[in-house]
Amino acid sequence: MSTMLEEIRQQPAAIERTFKSESRNVERLRKHFETHRPRFIVLAARGTSDNAAQFGRYLLEITTGIPVSLAAPSVYTLYKAHVDLKDALVVAISQSGESTDTNLVLERAHEAGAMTIGITNEANSALAKMCEYAFLVRAGKERSVAATKTYTGQLFSMYMLAYALGAAIKLDDLKKLADFAGAALKLESEIRTRAERYRFMRQAVVVGRGLNYANSFEFALKLMETCYVVAERFSSADLLHGPIAMLESSFPAFVFAPPGVTWKPIRELLERLKSIQVESLIITDRSNREAQTDKNNVVTIPAALVRKPAIPEELFTAIPYVIPGQLFAASLAEVKGLDPDKPRTLSKVTLTL
Amino acid sequence: MSTMLEEIRQQPAAIERTFKSESRNVERLRKHFETHRPRFIVLAARGTSDNAAQFGRYLLEITTGIPVSLAAPSVYTLYKAHVDLKDALVVAISQSGESTDTNLVLERAHEAGAMTIGITNEANSALAKMCEYAFLVRAGKERSVAATKTYTGQLFSMYMLAYALGAAIKLDDLKKLADFAGAALKLESEIRTRAERYRFMRQAVVVGRGLNYANSFEFALKLMETCYVVAERFSSADLLHGPIAMLESSFPAFVFAPPGVTWKPIRELLERLKSIQVESLIITDRSNREAQTDKNNVVTIPAALVRKPAIPEELFTAIPYVIPGQLFAASLAEVKGLDPDKPRTLSKVTLTL
Repeated sequence: MSTMLEEIRQQPAAIERTFKSESRNVERLRKHFETHRPRFIVLAARGTSDNAAQFGRYLLEITTGIPVSLAAPSVYTLYKAHVDLKDALVVAISQSGESTDTNLVLERAHEAGAMTIGITNEANSALAKMCEYAFLVRAGKERSVAATKTYTGQLFSMYMLAYALGAAIKLDDLKKLADFAGAALKLESEIRTRAERYRFMRQAVVVGRGLNYANSFEFALKLMETCYVVAERFSSADLLHGPIAMLESSFPAFVFAPPGVTWKPIRELLERLKSIQVESLIITDRSNREAQTDKNNVVTIPAALVRKPAIPEELFTAIPYVIPGQLFAASLAEVKGLDPDKPRTLSKVTLTL
Repeated sequence: MSTMLEEIRQQPAAIERTFKSESRNVERLRKHFETHRPRFIVLAARGTSDNAAQFGRYLLEITTGIPVSLAAPSVYTLYKAHVDLKDALVVAISQSGESTDTNLVLERAHEAGAMTIGITNEANSALAKMCEYAFLVRAGKERSVAATKTYTGQLFSMYMLAYALGAAIKLDDLKKLADFAGAALKLESEIRTRAERYRFMRQAVVVGRGLNYANSFEFALKLMETCYVVAERFSSADLLHGPIAMLESSFPAFVFAPPGVTWKPIRELLERLKSIQVESLIITDRSNREAQTDKNNVVTIPAALVRKPAIPEELFTAIPYVIPGQLFAASLAEVKGLDPDKPRTLSKVTLTL
């Protein structure tokens, strides 16, 4: 068994540990932000962590109303621009905490008067030491080059951060994310069987929207780095603005389809894909009945993740929904005879400027 | 000849017209912003216009120091979130001015107390009418589905906006962008010859950094919509954080390589690509001598775009650099026997929510 698969299975425990160790700090931080609300938030990251930032950008704007921006690191590192960040909150996200450019953005932000937060898996990292406030992801050492448990740990930290910033969610509700992750893990053997069909897939497109847009980037990244599949990723809206022209029946679409406000545009896209003979594999959960009409094309998380109408309904889907994608990439790598833990040309810590 | 190619050729004239008709308004706007500096800027767009927004995000932060964010339209349209945008400047960019979601973001922003600007090619569009201030792109009617002259027109409007927001550039300096575009157009026949080599290309990766990062998205989008090539796009840093594993000798890289602060990381990436047998085609100009060592792999714009060291040196490269990409896509479509003006499954105005 690959280390990647082992680490995928550790996710519910990692989320629980992170919740227990960080929740008291988060309560304190919430008090702090009651009187020190940031004017806007900048998130800085690379790779998988940047996908977690992409999720944070939606979650934080939707639940707190504070405008969020994803940092362009080169503005700080190469161009050495002086961006006016006083009264901003700048959050750097890095599994290792040793990402040179992300850390440099945080340093510049601190000099510019911003409050700084670091989200990292490594308590002794440069990032954990330099930030004013560290959110530690308690995922345990991640040994596979393909990040999985640290990604969901970072997503989880984003929920904690949203709570700290005053989002109308209950801290205790976050506990159930560990259960949701556990429900998604039950798909392991089904997904291993499904992966066989894709043995010779070389290209794919992954589609998500809103709170699952980041997951489309992350699923695609796993396909790229562990299976060497050329995986495009788009929101359903962006796909229609041009790129849909390149799709053809020779490569499949993987589509995140939670219930809630994104379902209508996603359903329309699925119909459009069908009309141009693109085969789709849909990821959904028990509460989206409409998505489950054709079992051949649907992976259903065996839990109803949305129990009552809430706004936005699919707030808690991001962690369980990415897990079928992780399982799929790990399984497909195996089917293709590849080692997902040691992708060619990659190492665990990437230093870029 | 395709309409796309005709419209590519019209770009220097379009830039000149835009400059003449808008420069007086821009001077007025600059006065306004002297006393009403926005706290931050949000750019909203889809498709090609979103690539222009991506450029704007770098240009505006680098030259004005005002933090910039690219809007996630679904936060406003699907989730109906109330983002706190008072004292913000919100800029919507749309060729047609009829993009439903982009216009809705602007409407919400206006209600939230933001100042609103629209950048559009259509003076009578919904966008031009609803925004407080319209930057008109005077490109003339764009008939090809593949946007070219409106993209460079939007880039040009971003320079005008940067000037209005107090950037230390001379308005008169912007005039030379029309000449730079003209210099890039001289590459037409060279690029037509080069395109032959790529007749059977089905996959590609386009790489750019900083002020040319948006061009990598735009070049890739042209390859996707007019040539049906599955074109990935990355910054050199993001590529190293995972996706490089999928690259192989069977598909090429197209790399923007201007002189200036991005050249060092781009050069390092080129060496890395060479070591894993990926064939690169480099786009540069006469002022980057180091990039011109191997003529087989380099397209050189026959002008020195950087005349004296300035920070950032490659400030004015974005418009001339994307033109070889546009010419390449139009030529390759022809070589492949495709009609770039009418891509399958696309129409000129895309309505999404």
